[in-house]
Amino acid sequence: MEFSSKLLERAVNEMSQLPGIGKRTALRLVLHMLRQPKEHTFALSEALQTMRKDVKFCKSCHNISDVELCEICSNPNRNAHIICVVEDVRDVMAIENTSSFKGLYHVLGGKISPMDGIGPHDLNIESLVGKVKEGKVKELIFALSSTMEGDTTNFYIFKQIQDFQIFTSTIARGISVGDELEYADEITLGRSIINRIPFETSIKL
Amino acid sequence: MEFSSKLLERAVNEMSQLPGIGKRTALRLVLHMLRQPKEHTFALSEALQTMRKDVKFCKSCHNISDVELCEICSNPNRNAHIICVVEDVRDVMAIENTSSFKGLYHVLGGKISPMDGIGPHDLNIESLVGKVKEGKVKELIFALSSTMEGDTTNFYIFKQIQDFQIFTSTIARGISVGDELEYADEITLGRSIINRIPFETSIKL
Repeated sequence: MEFSSKLLERAVNEMSQLPGIGKRTALRLVLHMLRQPKEHTFALSEALQTMRKDVKFCKSCHNISDVELCEICSNPNRNAHIICVVEDVRDVMAIENTSSFKGLYHVLGGKISPMDGIGPHDLNIESLVGKVKEGKVKELIFALSSTMEGDTTNFYIFKQIQDFQIFTSTIARGISVGDELEYADEITLGRSIINRIPFETSIKL
Repeated sequence: MEFSSKLLERAVNEMSQLPGIGKRTALRLVLHMLRQPKEHTFALSEALQTMRKDVKFCKSCHNISDVELCEICSNPNRNAHIICVVEDVRDVMAIENTSSFKGLYHVLGGKISPMDGIGPHDLNIESLVGKVKEGKVKELIFALSSTMEGDTTNFYIFKQIQDFQIFTSTIARGISVGDELEYADEITLGRSIINRIPFETSIKL
């Protein structure tokens, strides 16, 4: 790609470093910025810079926060005895959106993945085990994605905490609400049969 | 979408102002930045800001440039008698990539589109007509997209310059190289028959 301006080229190159943004998309975005008032670009640029500089991670659950202890962890109405273990911040947002969980979270910051060079020590596992050792946790809910990496991570954490008397659970796998059975994959369908629940329970949901 | 951090929320909101970037994509991009070293975000932010502040438009062809007169317009080896009229900067880059044009460009900055509130005076048409009036232009090539807006814009410009003795042309429409005839639309196929060229000419390309 030949650019008529070095400034344009640099902006496009920086933009195309972002995941899923190729050179063409980056060019389209940058040209859009040139058509908009200067202030839009300055606001975007400033927001990104401030965010990157000042954003904190909650010292307890490692969720993104503006303060030392995030709103969820510092909320006295939430049940501090149940901790839902998730991969990243988006999972916290997704579960919060359902309004079906009133415990606390623990954000691992990824999954164990030897292929990507991510080991247990790159994740926030130690602090989670620490919480369990302190004896305040009664239940740990594993809510990682059900991939090989997710299962490995679940199992690694389970091994570390199995000697403590706490209940561990994992979110239910099954056919999505509204999905047709014939299009479901075998493993999910199989699991949904094995882990069937009493009909009377299901109609109360 | 509930955010655990105002800084994060603002960054996502600003990012999702860009065309084709929704809230979810913006969040993905911003979380990616948080995982990367701070310097990456600062470099992106600085590149966008500098670009928006310092980028110039060539005073002759309105192409994006770092200097007053762009590299193409100031190149003495290019034929200043032929001007290719394009919609935006990306079209200049696309045509330059083909290495098949050695004249100059004129970037209109859009197409006449009453639906979007874009009239002839919002585009760089006056300066184009000015060039023709000066008598230095021998040929004008219309290379706008063949939509109703493109055709309207071509016709508007043509009306303004038809009294001057210059040759006007439009890029060839036809079946793309490598495309199957059966999948071509009727209008394109029809035009490609009407505007057929001598076989001997085609094998020289």
